[in-house]
Amino acid sequence: MSVVVVGVGHTKFDELWDKSLQDLLFQAQHEALIDAGLCTTDVDKIIVGSMSSQSLLRQSLLGCVASEVLGISVPSYHIDAACASGGVAIHAAVAEIQAGRADVVLVSGVEKMSDASVEQVTSAMINAGDIETEAFCGATIPGLFALVARAYMHLHGATREDFAHVSVKNHAHGFLNPLAQLRKKLSIQQVLNAPVVADPLTLLDCSPISDGAASLVLCSSDFAKKLNVKSIAITASQVATDTVSLALRDDLATFKATKKAATKAFAQAKITHQDIDVIEVHDAFSVAELMALEDLGFFKPGCAAQATRDGVTSLHGKLPVNPSGGLKAKGHPVGATGVAQAVEIVKQLQGRCEQRQVPNARIGLTQNVGGIGTTVAIHIFEKREQ
Amino acid sequence: MSVVVVGVGHTKFDELWDKSLQDLLFQAQHEALIDAGLCTTDVDKIIVGSMSSQSLLRQSLLGCVASEVLGISVPSYHIDAACASGGVAIHAAVAEIQAGRADVVLVSGVEKMSDASVEQVTSAMINAGDIETEAFCGATIPGLFALVARAYMHLHGATREDFAHVSVKNHAHGFLNPLAQLRKKLSIQQVLNAPVVADPLTLLDCSPISDGAASLVLCSSDFAKKLNVKSIAITASQVATDTVSLALRDDLATFKATKKAATKAFAQAKITHQDIDVIEVHDAFSVAELMALEDLGFFKPGCAAQATRDGVTSLHGKLPVNPSGGLKAKGHPVGATGVAQAVEIVKQLQGRCEQRQVPNARIGLTQNVGGIGTTVAIHIFEKREQ
Repeated sequence: MSVVVVGVGHTKFDELWDKSLQDLLFQAQHEALIDAGLCTTDVDKIIVGSMSSQSLLRQSLLGCVASEVLGISVPSYHIDAACASGGVAIHAAVAEIQAGRADVVLVSGVEKMSDASVEQVTSAMINAGDIETEAFCGATIPGLFALVARAYMHLHGATREDFAHVSVKNHAHGFLNPLAQLRKKLSIQQVLNAPVVADPLTLLDCSPISDGAASLVLCSSDFAKKLNVKSIAITASQVATDTVSLALRDDLATFKATKKAATKAFAQAKITHQDIDVIEVHDAFSVAELMALEDLGFFKPGCAAQATRDGVTSLHGKLPVNPSGGLKAKGHPVGATGVAQAVEIVKQLQGRCEQRQVPNARIGLTQNVGGIGTTVAIHIFEKREQ
Repeated sequence: MSVVVVGVGHTKFDELWDKSLQDLLFQAQHEALIDAGLCTTDVDKIIVGSMSSQSLLRQSLLGCVASEVLGISVPSYHIDAACASGGVAIHAAVAEIQAGRADVVLVSGVEKMSDASVEQVTSAMINAGDIETEAFCGATIPGLFALVARAYMHLHGATREDFAHVSVKNHAHGFLNPLAQLRKKLSIQQVLNAPVVADPLTLLDCSPISDGAASLVLCSSDFAKKLNVKSIAITASQVATDTVSLALRDDLATFKATKKAATKAFAQAKITHQDIDVIEVHDAFSVAELMALEDLGFFKPGCAAQATRDGVTSLHGKLPVNPSGGLKAKGHPVGATGVAQAVEIVKQLQGRCEQRQVPNARIGLTQNVGGIGTTVAIHIFEKREQ
């Protein structure tokens, strides 16, 4: 059965001091329903992706919270897959439609991080590492990504400038996105001269701490025909995993989970890399975008840096990557990110992205990562004649 | 498509000081695979239900942890629905099979609670309440269930002795279950004279703090035919929700989510209450068993207490309830409970329960509650001729 997106919602990503988690969930869900031309009473099921609602906000049962803020009581649940919570929530929502258990599923990602201190957020985020071998030893997520960056530099001869080009590109894109948190163009020198967070990564290699939510309304293609909206098909939905502990991996410069999920996704969508017009990848740290592009198969190992320098992945390049600004500039409310990536791709395929629009985009892909490449969700979206 | 259980696993429930979360997950999953006659390489997907892994253990990505302990890397994810995490995980696993995305799904519930202090556990559990209107005001889960118990007493004229009969029955059942945490028979006087936790509930009206895990191997009925095992069909899988905040409800003496899920489950399984031979309900607090039996429709409102006193719900009564000992005596590692209930029903239908076997059980039901009746998962299982 073919599953389609019929509505999208996306709050501003920022430090939203005057918004609660409930406010954010309401806003994104409400906007998605309006976009689909549906009422709250049309919703059959709600799935929410979020990572830190328990560790930072002390709130469980987020599915019920998402239902309550809409004033309805529908079957609902919450998925935690760290920073891939949003992407995995979409994966679960697709199954609900395919299983024939629901006509309309509202799937959201949400995170409210800025109410906590930086120390509390840093502590909450390392829950995505291995508690026994990493967190107990004092590792942080930026620290573990710095290990990955060093391995990548060692293997491919990449430089800090290579990483900086990713940040500069994504900030240039985010400058054009009204929903982005950091709408500020950067120079290579600014990235290189920024304070070091975890060597070799500077503050401007890292995505920010953000609040935000994003939502999709999913239904079957048959059901969508009854609605007077232009739908976008989800032609592939794949999740793959790797070991939680980095110590168990034989290579740090590649994320096997991306490779596995990508192989299955291209087969499921029955397309090749040449068919893809636009992609959103998980650039939580600048090096991660280069790795994503290589692990997805768009560039050979070690070659994504030069392509980035050459503008291939820029908005007007051959393969626009992260036109939204990516996690780096758009912001990274962790559980929201996977759904927000999907919202961007759907809007690109619908031609609704104004200044950052990729011309004639027909097929797009999202790659959403939880932990240090520990779980990866990949979705492929396609605009079809209707 | 018909979904069946082909293997079950269940650790001892107890304060397991020498077992980690990883140990418990490994043991339950391994036992379920052995029971199904399958290898780790046969597993297509893993889903884990757990509530407090982030708040107490600081570990996210539990799906990947569950995969890693088996030495495999398969698509996996983690569902948090508070104390209903296990039941909701089964619900999601059923969709994976029905959607045709996986042949073999390993679904587990797990919780490791005893490493934390009682204060930490009490604090982690109130995450299942409403953070804004309940937790911030100092409410605890036992405190909120005491409100519910008072409302039930007020409406139906029920007494503390009525509640005590539930605990006495379930301890008598748990005494016969080698996997139960509290294998000790109780008297009514012992329950009434125990220290008050939250008036009117005493320590012996409350389920204990526990460690444990339970697993099921699910597949389609077609796939099961290839295996040389006796499968049990899942003929209904329903989840329903209510408001998170108790202040938004018009009646505290009933859980609407149980009623909604039950109505749909009986319709889905195409059976009546008379067809049910054995049930496991969510007696996190003694009053909750009485409410469950009434909300499920087995007794009229206010009548479950007399039925319990009359022995109707005892092992050798007309409708055996919680033959495992229930949450009260078997233990309540919160995320594991929903899956553990299913394990008990499957074993009852397979005639593997020895001293606590319900004779000739053919159809059984589980009711798993998250929060204060905030989300409820109901499953119906049936032994079919093979």
